[in-house]
Amino acid sequence: MFQNFEVLSSPDQAATRLARLRTGFGASGVDAVAVPRSDEYLGEYVPDCAERLAWLTGFTGSAGLVLVLEDEAHIFVDGRYAAQVRAQTDGQVFRYQDLIATPLASFLQDCGLEGLRLGIDPWTWPGSEVTRLETALKTIGGSLVLLEHNPVDAVWDDRPEPPLGTVTIQPTEFAGTLAREKLAVIAQTAAEAGADAVILADPSSVAWSFNIRGQDLPSTPHPLSRAIIAATGLPRLFIDKRKTGIEAEAYLTQIADLERPSSFDEALKELGKAGATVMIDPAVASHAISLLIEKAGGTVLNAPDPARLPRACKNEAEIAGSARVHVQDGAAMVRFLAWLDRQTPGTIDEIGAATRLEQFRATTGETMQMPLKALSFDTISGAGPNAAIMHYRVNTQTNRRVNSGEMLLIDSGGQYVAGTTDITRTVAVGDVPQEQKRFFTLVLKGMIAISCLRFPEGTRGMDIDAFARIALWQAGADFAHGTGHGVGSYLSVHEGPQSISRRGTQELLPGMIVSNEPGYYRDGAFGIRIENLVTVHEPREIDGGDKPMLGFETLTLCPIDKRLILVHLLDATERAWLDAYHARVRAELSPLLSDDPALEWLETATGPL
Amino acid sequence: MFQNFEVLSSPDQAATRLARLRTGFGASGVDAVAVPRSDEYLGEYVPDCAERLAWLTGFTGSAGLVLVLEDEAHIFVDGRYAAQVRAQTDGQVFRYQDLIATPLASFLQDCGLEGLRLGIDPWTWPGSEVTRLETALKTIGGSLVLLEHNPVDAVWDDRPEPPLGTVTIQPTEFAGTLAREKLAVIAQTAAEAGADAVILADPSSVAWSFNIRGQDLPSTPHPLSRAIIAATGLPRLFIDKRKTGIEAEAYLTQIADLERPSSFDEALKELGKAGATVMIDPAVASHAISLLIEKAGGTVLNAPDPARLPRACKNEAEIAGSARVHVQDGAAMVRFLAWLDRQTPGTIDEIGAATRLEQFRATTGETMQMPLKALSFDTISGAGPNAAIMHYRVNTQTNRRVNSGEMLLIDSGGQYVAGTTDITRTVAVGDVPQEQKRFFTLVLKGMIAISCLRFPEGTRGMDIDAFARIALWQAGADFAHGTGHGVGSYLSVHEGPQSISRRGTQELLPGMIVSNEPGYYRDGAFGIRIENLVTVHEPREIDGGDKPMLGFETLTLCPIDKRLILVHLLDATERAWLDAYHARVRAELSPLLSDDPALEWLETATGPL
Repeated sequence: MFQNFEVLSSPDQAATRLARLRTGFGASGVDAVAVPRSDEYLGEYVPDCAERLAWLTGFTGSAGLVLVLEDEAHIFVDGRYAAQVRAQTDGQVFRYQDLIATPLASFLQDCGLEGLRLGIDPWTWPGSEVTRLETALKTIGGSLVLLEHNPVDAVWDDRPEPPLGTVTIQPTEFAGTLAREKLAVIAQTAAEAGADAVILADPSSVAWSFNIRGQDLPSTPHPLSRAIIAATGLPRLFIDKRKTGIEAEAYLTQIADLERPSSFDEALKELGKAGATVMIDPAVASHAISLLIEKAGGTVLNAPDPARLPRACKNEAEIAGSARVHVQDGAAMVRFLAWLDRQTPGTIDEIGAATRLEQFRATTGETMQMPLKALSFDTISGAGPNAAIMHYRVNTQTNRRVNSGEMLLIDSGGQYVAGTTDITRTVAVGDVPQEQKRFFTLVLKGMIAISCLRFPEGTRGMDIDAFARIALWQAGADFAHGTGHGVGSYLSVHEGPQSISRRGTQELLPGMIVSNEPGYYRDGAFGIRIENLVTVHEPREIDGGDKPMLGFETLTLCPIDKRLILVHLLDATERAWLDAYHARVRAELSPLLSDDPALEWLETATGPL
Repeated sequence: MFQNFEVLSSPDQAATRLARLRTGFGASGVDAVAVPRSDEYLGEYVPDCAERLAWLTGFTGSAGLVLVLEDEAHIFVDGRYAAQVRAQTDGQVFRYQDLIATPLASFLQDCGLEGLRLGIDPWTWPGSEVTRLETALKTIGGSLVLLEHNPVDAVWDDRPEPPLGTVTIQPTEFAGTLAREKLAVIAQTAAEAGADAVILADPSSVAWSFNIRGQDLPSTPHPLSRAIIAATGLPRLFIDKRKTGIEAEAYLTQIADLERPSSFDEALKELGKAGATVMIDPAVASHAISLLIEKAGGTVLNAPDPARLPRACKNEAEIAGSARVHVQDGAAMVRFLAWLDRQTPGTIDEIGAATRLEQFRATTGETMQMPLKALSFDTISGAGPNAAIMHYRVNTQTNRRVNSGEMLLIDSGGQYVAGTTDITRTVAVGDVPQEQKRFFTLVLKGMIAISCLRFPEGTRGMDIDAFARIALWQAGADFAHGTGHGVGSYLSVHEGPQSISRRGTQELLPGMIVSNEPGYYRDGAFGIRIENLVTVHEPREIDGGDKPMLGFETLTLCPIDKRLILVHLLDATERAWLDAYHARVRAELSPLLSDDPALEWLETATGPL
């Protein structure tokens, strides 16, 4: 099993640990420190050794920070974690702040802490955020102290060792483009911008550029590493050699100089001393990187990570790989849903469902010789009211039966060498109330609207987000998350810059993979989400039109629960889309299920409305 | 008649005038000057005395600029004026640049004019743009020279005098809020931002705040004036006393110190000398304003014009006034459309149509005791292929018959004391081809989609723009303008910050008036636009929902040509919307047309589909 269901939080330790942290304030010359969830790589997931926020506070969410003052401590989280942070941390020790309404910079300006000396580890903050903190502190006559060493690590005795996950070569069959071609393009981008080198600070950019994958994190298969790509000359890859086996090392030494991660600081200083102009993306690079270069005399050129957009636009091999894993992932989902339907209503719980689904993914992967390498993220398995908690992680304490008459929301995905999947289905157990079916149908209408959309070149994610919401809006409802996020190719399941959301400023380009996942959540009652992955296709001519149009091809293959649909709320186009989708699901998945009891289930589930 | 149809351009003068302009370069210490369409008030419309770009080049469009170098001159216009600029100017004298693809700042960076000293009149450029030019010139070792006097005025012998349009008091019945209350709120905004004063640099903000209107410009009834609102103390209004009659002067002296426009510079310098912090909106204020304050020692606080958002959110009196004028404006439109239908196809031309429509507006205004004060803008009257020119201004040279089998696009509006109208109808003359009807119906679907929309608080114009396009997108088509612009209350017909467009970052708030005007344009063939004004209503509860929703109420009352609709392309909701709209139009307009031959026409035009 990849997933575990342990209760991870230990709030009772917080007071002691904060006290130890504060003992270091004097020596560091600070009155406070701020500790974010992010680690030195600023990724969404962090290894155990970098779970500093969780160790210090008990809060295990994927975003947030703690401000530790001499006499008090404030935890900042966003709305989706408002309940969780209170459950996981000691209310006697912490005060709670809203990360979005009152970000740390605003809080500092407003809280009257005149002259505050705030310490941070500049490795764990992006440059863009440091600027904001400095500005805020200036207005209260305070100052930002960039600490030499991480203040939590100094007092965390039994801190785990950094991970040493094995590095593998991503086969060209699935990568589609040779690493040296990608690296040449990146070097050229730097040269054209007038830079001597570019820093790849995002491990996903490193993994994509060098065609390697790793096992440092449970769900994101990039090795924690960084690279310096000079405009001319061999790329320098900073990676622990204990991670690279003979084969990967032999491969990598052909395209790069391999160097120890500990020599990265020195390399930055050398660039600075040589007076180099270095391209850095302040949104994804630690502030410490710019700092080291500039202090040594170099010039930093702020520009977007040059691997970001090419990585987002998948090539034919990556699209084909994704299509391939979506067939087997769909077969695993069908086996799971068929199994679920065979159980007596009220006998299955959330952990049982998640466990069984993982097993089906693993066994299907073995059969197909495309093994499940990891889950794309911890499966969200929410029954009845638990499904209304958007980022629900079931554990042994919260685990709940799916009672008859309730819905189960299951959001999950697999990492396979050929691609990454992410799918949500919400299914009926027993006879679900009409009102819940009505909202299920409205959510489905939004999902179909995105699936059917055609749009001209230049359209951004933000331009189309509302099509996923309009059926709900007309009914007086909405959902409080974006419609879709980018997805990597055997990389992060949350990949930028593409998205379908209010903040989606990136144009949608052919080859991008995004999720299409509208939802509806009624607190304490029920939750619905329906999610397919889709890929943006090339502009296509339309009869009688004068502009070729982009659109989406659906990758995900799995029935949508017809028992939850109020057919009269769908129009003819929507019904036709669903019937055609189900026919395709049946045609593509049936061959994998020929000797399986799930085949009969599939045939029923994919019959016309 | 307000509108004239003269050929305005005189391209033959350009070479001589440029030569005269260049004679001043040496004394000013510049190698080039840039002259924009904007005047000292940075408005969309400028008085005759400020038509510097037209005088210099012949180009009369509403946006653009000319860069005059020693040996060459470049005119920059956006796509909608690409054809017009070539028709109106001498191709031997000017080169043509795309204002959007290559803005002046980029052009300067790329054109290799090392060390260029570029002169501008800082009164005719907003601060935000000056910063861009300075940055661009720095990269080529050049410099921006802020000229003491406008370089065109120095050589323009017969330059008209500045306008002295009479100032009127906007009655409280229509303004809804007393000027002193508005001014108090603005003063408070300045105080809360820590400013000693705020500059109202936008004449529409002055007109709104002081409840006055003017006649300096043909279509926008604001007096050209500026104001300084101190955080405490009496507002200072800079306006020529020859514009204010006894009544207006008596009114204004109760709420403000009236000062000569020529003393405005001195007032800014005094603020600077006193070390004041002054709030300025760099998007709407001339760069010269900030410059004078800062040079004298003051501090400029960049912040949005505090009148902008309250002006956009109309109060009950303004909404009621708008509704009232939309009834009489609709009656005038119906008289016009009924008249048009009585003419033999092929006998009416564009000027004839525009002239007759203005007459109907004028006579209807007299009858209703709410006279037509001005056209909101020059009527766009385009027959057949001319309708495909988005900002078409018909003149005696371009004037064209509407042949049988063609459509006439007529986009027009009136300024009335109680409100401003803006309406487009596209109507059939004779039997129009099926293909054109298909596109008319697709445009109508977009217009209805916006009309029917419900959306949650926080929704921005950019979030909903695509609903006006989706029917076209699905058919492989689009239109190259925003869906809607804000509209003032007896003020500018193009009012910010509200809009429905890709760039509409402003949240839609109750009381805002915006246009809803999707279109479709096929070059050289035909053009379609259907436009209603709508107002954002307060959030309303929806049965079975959990979130009150905003939406639009339609203000415009005028039939949509049913002869151009392919009914089978409309769904049940769309058909119901149109029938209900037409029933409302009939009910509201019939009482005004009781003795008119247009009544019978109205009854037919508004019958159910």
